[in-house]
Amino acid sequence: MRRMNCLVSLLALVPAAVLAAPPLNQQVRAYRVQHEKQIVGDFVTLLSMPNVATTVTDVEKNAAYIEAQLKARGFTTRILAAAPDTPPAVFAELRTPGARRTVEFYAHYDGQPVGQKGWIISPFTPSMRSALPEAVPVDWRAAPGPLDPDWRLYARSAGDDKGSIQALLSAFDALKAFGRKPSVNIKLLYEGEEEQGSPHFAKIVADNQALLKCDVLIMGDGPMHQSGKQMVNFGNRGITSLTLTVYGPMKPLHDGHYGSWAPSPSVMIADLVMSLRDDDGHIRIPHFYDDVTPPSAADQAAIAAMPPVEADLKQALGLGRNVGPPRLAEGYLQPTLNVRAIHAGDEGANAANAIATEGHASLDVRLAPGETPAHVRELLEGYLTQQGWFIVRDTPDRATRLAHPRVVRVVWDEGGAIATQTALDLPVSKAVVATIGRTVGYPVIKLPIVGASSGMADIVNQLHTPMVGVSIANYDDNQHAQNENLRLGNLWDGIEVYAGLLADLNW
Amino acid sequence: MRRMNCLVSLLALVPAAVLAAPPLNQQVRAYRVQHEKQIVGDFVTLLSMPNVATTVTDVEKNAAYIEAQLKARGFTTRILAAAPDTPPAVFAELRTPGARRTVEFYAHYDGQPVGQKGWIISPFTPSMRSALPEAVPVDWRAAPGPLDPDWRLYARSAGDDKGSIQALLSAFDALKAFGRKPSVNIKLLYEGEEEQGSPHFAKIVADNQALLKCDVLIMGDGPMHQSGKQMVNFGNRGITSLTLTVYGPMKPLHDGHYGSWAPSPSVMIADLVMSLRDDDGHIRIPHFYDDVTPPSAADQAAIAAMPPVEADLKQALGLGRNVGPPRLAEGYLQPTLNVRAIHAGDEGANAANAIATEGHASLDVRLAPGETPAHVRELLEGYLTQQGWFIVRDTPDRATRLAHPRVVRVVWDEGGAIATQTALDLPVSKAVVATIGRTVGYPVIKLPIVGASSGMADIVNQLHTPMVGVSIANYDDNQHAQNENLRLGNLWDGIEVYAGLLADLNW
Repeated sequence: MRRMNCLVSLLALVPAAVLAAPPLNQQVRAYRVQHEKQIVGDFVTLLSMPNVATTVTDVEKNAAYIEAQLKARGFTTRILAAAPDTPPAVFAELRTPGARRTVEFYAHYDGQPVGQKGWIISPFTPSMRSALPEAVPVDWRAAPGPLDPDWRLYARSAGDDKGSIQALLSAFDALKAFGRKPSVNIKLLYEGEEEQGSPHFAKIVADNQALLKCDVLIMGDGPMHQSGKQMVNFGNRGITSLTLTVYGPMKPLHDGHYGSWAPSPSVMIADLVMSLRDDDGHIRIPHFYDDVTPPSAADQAAIAAMPPVEADLKQALGLGRNVGPPRLAEGYLQPTLNVRAIHAGDEGANAANAIATEGHASLDVRLAPGETPAHVRELLEGYLTQQGWFIVRDTPDRATRLAHPRVVRVVWDEGGAIATQTALDLPVSKAVVATIGRTVGYPVIKLPIVGASSGMADIVNQLHTPMVGVSIANYDDNQHAQNENLRLGNLWDGIEVYAGLLADLNW
Repeated sequence: MRRMNCLVSLLALVPAAVLAAPPLNQQVRAYRVQHEKQIVGDFVTLLSMPNVATTVTDVEKNAAYIEAQLKARGFTTRILAAAPDTPPAVFAELRTPGARRTVEFYAHYDGQPVGQKGWIISPFTPSMRSALPEAVPVDWRAAPGPLDPDWRLYARSAGDDKGSIQALLSAFDALKAFGRKPSVNIKLLYEGEEEQGSPHFAKIVADNQALLKCDVLIMGDGPMHQSGKQMVNFGNRGITSLTLTVYGPMKPLHDGHYGSWAPSPSVMIADLVMSLRDDDGHIRIPHFYDDVTPPSAADQAAIAAMPPVEADLKQALGLGRNVGPPRLAEGYLQPTLNVRAIHAGDEGANAANAIATEGHASLDVRLAPGETPAHVRELLEGYLTQQGWFIVRDTPDRATRLAHPRVVRVVWDEGGAIATQTALDLPVSKAVVATIGRTVGYPVIKLPIVGASSGMADIVNQLHTPMVGVSIANYDDNQHAQNENLRLGNLWDGIEVYAGLLADLNW
């Protein structure tokens, strides 16, 4: 920090253009050090806007704000919506005279629902907190010197995924301050309902294929590697998700009088879940792994080269074991069946000695390359039928329940996506890895595929464009959960990484 | 109804004592027909008092009201509490000059918690509703003739168990109106925390053994037989209950990034539950059935003689199958492991693509004769340990989680009870069956043991007194659930049954 402060002082004395082209990352860092509070202030404004995409008017306000920010920076902008009253995407474009390549940056500005218990802040009232584990509120506006990079800003979407948007905006400002020209044509595509499974995104892409055409998509979503080192990823697993409901008696029954005779939805849902996967993560549905594309040698080599983080992770998470393969990223090459939630009967203050009427399980399947949502659905439903379950789509009436000993309501969520993967040895893949390596000063980690899914699948599939993922959020950002946060140092580094991608990328 | 109205008109013309001793049940019925609205009004008052025993001041108000009702009828009363600020029992006594036997009537005036979803009324604002399935509000106060016996009064504890208290009070009033003397010394014991598992009841009984001494206990709890016919039971299964908590990561994790590697509490709790019992109700814990006393020939004969209700029950409950033995009551002779609730992760508005931190299951075990809570606990915990679970009593710290791959918190509820059973061929058993048979005019159903448990176990064990159960509530009274109710006709019949037990019982 001290060295940077000297640079800032120096820079303050002379116009940027007069300097003999110092390294890009140093210029960007100098800009950031001078503008830390302004950057944080802008970010707080962005995070203060509620952005759960089930409320369209909320995400529209976010879109309007982001569009205004881009217009002010000289971008041509457009709001793209699949239909009225659906969450829009923000598109922006800035041509660079003489540039051969067009780079399109993706992020999403909507966030996960915020109803989880245990938030220490109101999710849309951003709060700066000291480094973990204390995490006490700090007055960043009144802080005298540079802000502590281990401080974290707490708010929904701080890490997932508004941080990427703020980093790009600030990177652009830094380039401008030093008169650095982008090396590529820039397109931005900021989605507004990624956390709802992107139900309208495919149509937005299909309706705007010419507009969205580019040479590479840079996806700015998801957390960094647990080692804190910069990582580049080359795809995302797919997803399909569903809710299962099983049925017991049509009204709750006293379990002393009826427990020995009436089927228990609590047990039925547990039994159903355990028929689908085991405790170790192995999926028990026959032929479930048949479609999976075997990982390439480059994929396997990249995973083997990743810094081991598993022991530290277990320590941090209080885990006495892991499931599946020992290396975290190795599991990404296979599908995972996640049981997000299982519920039957009342607990806590409402607990009763009763047999419940229903049991529920909320599941998602993370798809490996080669699998499709349609075939996964077919395999899962075929297996349920084979196990004696009668599948319905709505709440079954009495006649249906009487006619079938085991009735399950299967409701698949809209959306879903196949996995996407860009080969690690394409020229563009290598160029992105090289640019970021120059920015951070060490070899970046290469992850063949991210465990999570992304609305990007639709755009990649429709535009036939290579995609590379560049994440900047700390891995422990609590994304999708209560107390989501972004570590300030990650935002600072992210600004430098984005600046490199804007002004140093070429192939 | 018409015939009874004629009797009422007749009775209105002559003093009761002048009549040439008409059958007891006809006198009681005549009294009831004349006083229906007064009886319902009194019952509404009793049901209007909140009575969830977790709020001691609420149940104390109920106790004071009931005590006043009994004092007004000439009973000597006492409030019995195990300690200050614990739910009290109401004791009352009325000696009958010349009586050889003392009959003690048990009921409980507390009710189950009321937080269940789907109440069509406020649980402590009683509402009279028309017969099922319409169940629309009716103005019983303004109704012209006798009230429709298929109407139901909806309120918490209408069936479980304030109905028994109201029936006894009204039966006593009917006897008095006709100058009929009780045939026995009467004791009443009304418990105030049965629905909380009777944690203080054993001490109340131990502290008052001389006071509570009697020749038979008549337990007025639980629903009638599903056929609508009067039933006498001869015991209750025991109970022990517990909550299991399993642990995943110490904070929620994105299930795309960590689902292939981090253990899932949703799956762990489902796996644990399914290791304890199967879908068909068979308990998988080794040696679990070893302690069970084999049913007697009389028990088996009584069950075989019970009217078959299972087909109608399936129809009413929308069940395409049952678990366990085909006859409902046959299952009562064995233990049942009920999974009251299973919960992990958020659902509904709070649903997230996350791995939860904990999974919970709430269980009870209904004990057959021969089993003890202590041995059941030992067997269950031994089995958990054998399966690789490390048992803790409090939330485990990080070191405990790291040291043990599978940690389960096992918390047993206070209380618990062994089963109780009175032999069907004791003289007192036969006398109760005969008296009720005379009241209702048909052979009563004999149930060797009730599937549910009762705080009576403690009193029976300590006083070494035979116990016989006489239930009056409709089987579909929604006890322990939302929209608990008592069918008016059941209250009317219950008044006659109690009058017979007060004035016709002898052996």
